[in-house]
Amino acid sequence: MTDYRILATATVADYLASHPDLAARLGGTSADWQVRDVADGNLNAVYLIDGPAGGLCLKQALPYVRVAGESWPIDVQRITFEAGQMRRVAPFVGRLTPELFHFDPDQYVIVMEKLAPHVILRQGLIAGRHYPRAATDIADYVAAAAFFTSGLAQKFEASAGDRMLFSCNLALQRISVDLVFTDPYHVCDRNRITPALEPWARALREDVALKRAVARARALYLGKPQSVLHGDLHSGSIMVTSAETRVIDGEFAWVGPSGFDVGNFIAHLVMNWFAKPYHGGNTAVFRALLVIDIMQFWLRFEARFLHHWRGFTGESDLYPLSHFGDSVGQEQLETIRRDYVTDLFADAIRFAACKIIRRIVGFAQIADFLVIEDEQNRAHAQAGALALATSMLKQPGLFRNIADLAAALPQYDHAGLDPP
Amino acid sequence: MTDYRILATATVADYLASHPDLAARLGGTSADWQVRDVADGNLNAVYLIDGPAGGLCLKQALPYVRVAGESWPIDVQRITFEAGQMRRVAPFVGRLTPELFHFDPDQYVIVMEKLAPHVILRQGLIAGRHYPRAATDIADYVAAAAFFTSGLAQKFEASAGDRMLFSCNLALQRISVDLVFTDPYHVCDRNRITPALEPWARALREDVALKRAVARARALYLGKPQSVLHGDLHSGSIMVTSAETRVIDGEFAWVGPSGFDVGNFIAHLVMNWFAKPYHGGNTAVFRALLVIDIMQFWLRFEARFLHHWRGFTGESDLYPLSHFGDSVGQEQLETIRRDYVTDLFADAIRFAACKIIRRIVGFAQIADFLVIEDEQNRAHAQAGALALATSMLKQPGLFRNIADLAAALPQYDHAGLDPP
Repeated sequence: MTDYRILATATVADYLASHPDLAARLGGTSADWQVRDVADGNLNAVYLIDGPAGGLCLKQALPYVRVAGESWPIDVQRITFEAGQMRRVAPFVGRLTPELFHFDPDQYVIVMEKLAPHVILRQGLIAGRHYPRAATDIADYVAAAAFFTSGLAQKFEASAGDRMLFSCNLALQRISVDLVFTDPYHVCDRNRITPALEPWARALREDVALKRAVARARALYLGKPQSVLHGDLHSGSIMVTSAETRVIDGEFAWVGPSGFDVGNFIAHLVMNWFAKPYHGGNTAVFRALLVIDIMQFWLRFEARFLHHWRGFTGESDLYPLSHFGDSVGQEQLETIRRDYVTDLFADAIRFAACKIIRRIVGFAQIADFLVIEDEQNRAHAQAGALALATSMLKQPGLFRNIADLAAALPQYDHAGLDPP
Repeated sequence: MTDYRILATATVADYLASHPDLAARLGGTSADWQVRDVADGNLNAVYLIDGPAGGLCLKQALPYVRVAGESWPIDVQRITFEAGQMRRVAPFVGRLTPELFHFDPDQYVIVMEKLAPHVILRQGLIAGRHYPRAATDIADYVAAAAFFTSGLAQKFEASAGDRMLFSCNLALQRISVDLVFTDPYHVCDRNRITPALEPWARALREDVALKRAVARARALYLGKPQSVLHGDLHSGSIMVTSAETRVIDGEFAWVGPSGFDVGNFIAHLVMNWFAKPYHGGNTAVFRALLVIDIMQFWLRFEARFLHHWRGFTGESDLYPLSHFGDSVGQEQLETIRRDYVTDLFADAIRFAACKIIRRIVGFAQIADFLVIEDEQNRAHAQAGALALATSMLKQPGLFRNIADLAAALPQYDHAGLDPP
């Protein structure tokens, strides 16, 4: 740690100049480069650098939570896991992960392709723009990662290697465990709650059946190591154009239940749906597009996941060909595949619900709601999402497939500020 | 590895003499020490050393499977995990694990207390001797390990540490995965099958529903990291007197489903029950004692496990006091505890069944059956156990509690050599 120096706009160019391969990508000399500080996430410093020959994105882990300041220290090693996650999924997701040019384990820096003119999907959705490829691209990304990094597609020794690496990512998992699964359900200084939502927040804290369902989700998150997760796959971790999609910010990587990433992406589309009437524009049209995205995302995920499995001819331990190779075995295997996906969907529903709740009564809020300046309106939008999420956790039998979820959305639109 | 030397009866004393703390335990000088080679397991060299002041047991990992010879190489690092398992459970199980005096990571040697006049439980059971403390002592051992090394009793960071260590124990897990869950269900040169059992072995290989249940068990073994497992807890890994019990040979340690160790111990009592009519002595009396042991083992395990949980006041992430601290929460938590134990029992049943099958149609056979010289008798004893195990895997609803299992034993005693 002794040589670790926090970069600034003025020193980024020197850093890049000292790495000839990176300098060559920019072209010219450091005097020709333009550096912009574009950090807008919660944790890291991010710079975009343009040179005569091209652009780069440099990300440096800071030793504290950027939005909270130095009073909340956090392990800079997280950038190791972000680089690890990118490298781990790259062979399976192709261009859906940015190209990683450089990882510096001493300065906790990664340098990757500059994404332009991409925008953060969340900002686009709030602005009422629709990105036709986003949902299916993310489905492809998650399906490939969920299958190829699971025990279905590799020997258990390889899975153990994944666990060994990502089990070290403790600082960020502590954040996930506390902020996602724990803090929203007890009184906690970090929680931020729209005042009119206090009755809802209290009802959540006092609902033991809900807390039991959350405890089940937390136990699965910690104890069901199915595949390498992105770990933070919401609309703020996705950059889009109308033609391209890129997944960024994999620093929360963890070996966990595949339904976690699936549910996270769904949760943020669902929350955008509830916030949409207060964003201006044609609510009905945009909500219809969101519902289609939610449906297409899951159906595409399911189809791709099953496609990868059915076509897999490599070695793994879970369903050996010597046990399931004949026609009866192949038929049984098809049932096993269906059951696997059904179980994954149930996990996705529970994690989506947890993700909705933590973004409304927890620490890390989302712009979809925060841009609603009228607090009463904001509370109404949030209450609808909370009502749906509560039902998803406590009545999972109502959410057996993605159409159930889509059909449920309008039923909770006017849930109101008094919890049931 | 360059300095690694395989010890022999003639060089063990020199090794111990070079470690003053160990030499002091023996007393006198190396000329006064008696060294005996007592290896009777499958994998390692084991010596008992007696001196004027006391005795020691020295175990060295060999770079091949001892019973198979140098043609089957195996990683000597396994002794690291054996030492790690002993140290990990020692604070919770007290004298039920032998005292570890010495671990040499270069020579792959551990030195521990000499157990005398203890005998291997399996040999005692075959000889028709009953050890009144064994079942309850093992229940205490497994209950303490299953609770205190689980996420119920420690923060997830500690659980991640356990996973990091024992995830490296790949060579022995490969043996478990192949020999327990895979080889018995396809044609494999390593399998050893009593000739009259060929129809049974074929029926198992062709039973797709059975192989599906086994696949579920294998997936749980690899993907349900509940607690630190001994990993090989059969009656050959237990040393007893009428007053004392010790668990040895934890080199298969792994973070997995707690029901694995529970089921393994039950499986070997069950197999002894089926073999018992051919061991001489009073079958009815001894079988009654075995059934009592099986019942007491589970009931004691369940009671101790719940006792540890109910009394736990430390920190953990799974069921925070801030969520379940009030009276309604405490009531809910009691239901959660019951469900946890019910789930653990279901796992124990499935793993017990897998363990029975692998010991009858797989590579590593057990003396309980091998001492039956008449092959027809041996096959009949084994067929009963196979019939029961098949039912346990395919009809788990018939085995909802330990009394179901006890009651089922006689129903399969005369299953016969023709599989259904």
